[in-house]
Amino acid sequence: MPMVEQPYRSWISAANREDCDFPLQNLPFGVFSTRDIAPRCGVAIGDMIVDLALCEERGLLDAGGTFSQPQLNDFIALGRAKWDEVRARLTGLLAEGGDENTPLVAMNAATLHLPIRVTEFTDFYASKNHAFNVGVLFRGPENALPPQWTHMPIGYNGRASSVVVSGTDIHRPMGQVKGDNGPLWSACRRLDLELELGAIVGADSKMGQRISVEQAEQMIFGYVLLNDWSARDIQAWEYQPLGPFQSKAVGTTISPWIVTQAALEPFRCKGADRVNPLLPYLQESRPGFYDMTIGWTMNGQRMGQTNYNVMYYSSAQQLAHHTVSGCPMRVGDLLGSGTISGASSEQTGALLEMTQGGKNPVTVNGESRTFIEDGDEIGLYAYATGDGYRIGFGPCIGTILPALK
Amino acid sequence: MPMVEQPYRSWISAANREDCDFPLQNLPFGVFSTRDIAPRCGVAIGDMIVDLALCEERGLLDAGGTFSQPQLNDFIALGRAKWDEVRARLTGLLAEGGDENTPLVAMNAATLHLPIRVTEFTDFYASKNHAFNVGVLFRGPENALPPQWTHMPIGYNGRASSVVVSGTDIHRPMGQVKGDNGPLWSACRRLDLELELGAIVGADSKMGQRISVEQAEQMIFGYVLLNDWSARDIQAWEYQPLGPFQSKAVGTTISPWIVTQAALEPFRCKGADRVNPLLPYLQESRPGFYDMTIGWTMNGQRMGQTNYNVMYYSSAQQLAHHTVSGCPMRVGDLLGSGTISGASSEQTGALLEMTQGGKNPVTVNGESRTFIEDGDEIGLYAYATGDGYRIGFGPCIGTILPALK
Repeated sequence: MPMVEQPYRSWISAANREDCDFPLQNLPFGVFSTRDIAPRCGVAIGDMIVDLALCEERGLLDAGGTFSQPQLNDFIALGRAKWDEVRARLTGLLAEGGDENTPLVAMNAATLHLPIRVTEFTDFYASKNHAFNVGVLFRGPENALPPQWTHMPIGYNGRASSVVVSGTDIHRPMGQVKGDNGPLWSACRRLDLELELGAIVGADSKMGQRISVEQAEQMIFGYVLLNDWSARDIQAWEYQPLGPFQSKAVGTTISPWIVTQAALEPFRCKGADRVNPLLPYLQESRPGFYDMTIGWTMNGQRMGQTNYNVMYYSSAQQLAHHTVSGCPMRVGDLLGSGTISGASSEQTGALLEMTQGGKNPVTVNGESRTFIEDGDEIGLYAYATGDGYRIGFGPCIGTILPALK
Repeated sequence: MPMVEQPYRSWISAANREDCDFPLQNLPFGVFSTRDIAPRCGVAIGDMIVDLALCEERGLLDAGGTFSQPQLNDFIALGRAKWDEVRARLTGLLAEGGDENTPLVAMNAATLHLPIRVTEFTDFYASKNHAFNVGVLFRGPENALPPQWTHMPIGYNGRASSVVVSGTDIHRPMGQVKGDNGPLWSACRRLDLELELGAIVGADSKMGQRISVEQAEQMIFGYVLLNDWSARDIQAWEYQPLGPFQSKAVGTTISPWIVTQAALEPFRCKGADRVNPLLPYLQESRPGFYDMTIGWTMNGQRMGQTNYNVMYYSSAQQLAHHTVSGCPMRVGDLLGSGTISGASSEQTGALLEMTQGGKNPVTVNGESRTFIEDGDEIGLYAYATGDGYRIGFGPCIGTILPALK
């Protein structure tokens, strides 16, 4: 199969627009259905979706029948050589001069589903700006950054069952919040978003096996946008000493398209400067971040925006740390980067930081906001800008509905 | 099918011994294999295992073919009416005068497996003695019990992939521990056990759905012994502010037999006295604990022993709280009770408490111990004592091997 040289174009014209999230260079994987097609695996290109199951039926691709599954887990488990082979094959089929009979579905006629069965979900805390800003609000400036923060990627296990795909409405949670005389039963009054990137683990590790940062990088299949909805008042009351629990089980929204490591490779870059050397098991032999704009909107208005290169720990470092005690990892594990925030208020990835704990309201379409109100829609976006194209993630959207009484 | 009156006996004589963990009144579910039989579902009775898959093949039981699976999840998902029907049917088959052709396998010829595919694992912190004792060691007596502790069951999400069945060896973990000048890379020097009971969730709940304590109780299939191995030095360095992570991903050992709620029902009792009223969503309409001896051994020597009735929050209360923000629960979710400790040192369920953070060594078979050393075997046991019989859990054992360098 001939390799196509960059910059390369697709015979699907929408894919060649500079502002299209899904050019030939991207080819993100997802799961779709239509009125006539049950959920199955696909790849986004321009304004279309490649029907991978049908491609395989017609002998255009070989993935052992895994593309007819309603999640990508079985395909991902086939391993990196297969990921690369399918990507190269799709590039050939979809490039100018490729196969114009490749089976496609119009994206606007398709429903997008959770791309993976989330095996387990771990959320990290790897933006130094965010960790410091939030630390000040929860514990004051002198205790803001925990002493181990610059030595290890701090993370906690989240709840996989509450991960949903973009477009899923979320009810405002009820719960315990702190009152003057003990806890109150209340709807959350400080509901927030968290702007994150999620890494999808693409290979298993064995119990007792410690994974190096290099091995960890080889184990990551790709990335999604991730909004870790957070009930800040519930969190403040519940989180000591064992960490956030119900405040973070409200829902976690991910984008339907998994952008592969291969697509992001041209944008590899270094992250934030190290405050101190890391222990050898966390040291990276090459830069582990991507030069990528990432931001969020509220009711369509642009709010915080920054770059993924502000982060302190890469997904590969997080994955390596995740196995340090021998914890086994599995295909479909989802690792949240932690909220991505730049240094200034307009670069923050959560309202808690942007409004300084609700003290400084922001204006959204002429209305004042400290936290999220019922009916508000939060959208996340990210893209890396190449020469005449961009690698985008598509939208990651969620709307907050009133609490169920 | 006629109901057998208590006290009732089995035609399998070993089941009628007063010190047998598995009398006719128990009938715990598990997964076994032999040299000739691939892993499938079974029920323990005396010194034998009922081959449930073969029972179904012969028309003795009806469970939709789920007993031929290598985990109980599919059977459990059939629901409480089916659990009760199968229990009643097995009672009839195995009672004196029942069917002596019921297919059995000798337990000593069988290998026992993880009884469920653990969907997600949550660990709670529901013994007030334990919470206070450990709080003193980590934060001093004035901050020992967190202010919300008497108002909600504090819990955190653990790592399902690291749950293993009794008999699985565990390597001492490596990790970061606090040194005088930053962290050290070290094998864990304060490795501990946690004596717990694990509840198996037997029904799904929907996203956004809050489960009452009464509904939660109906959703619990049964209980296992659970040892949540804990690396205390790694925990002390990592756990603020997001909770324990790698210190608790070393491994969690559960017993192979799931003792059903039905078997424990005669031992229902109240737990520890309430310090303050609970919010309505956590209030129970009847006692939620079991009068049950629970303890642990080290290298065969009896160490701590107490009663499950010392606990402050029941599994049903924990499950109800788990859904308060709308978090969906799923069949196969495992909820650890938290370490079960009585008030005195010889009633504690962890070495951290028993040795007061390593200050007061204990003697085990003539040797001094503060924490677990390489080669040490920890065993858990629990039983409820009835009239002429006991409902036991069988052993839950794990041995610590040296760290992998």
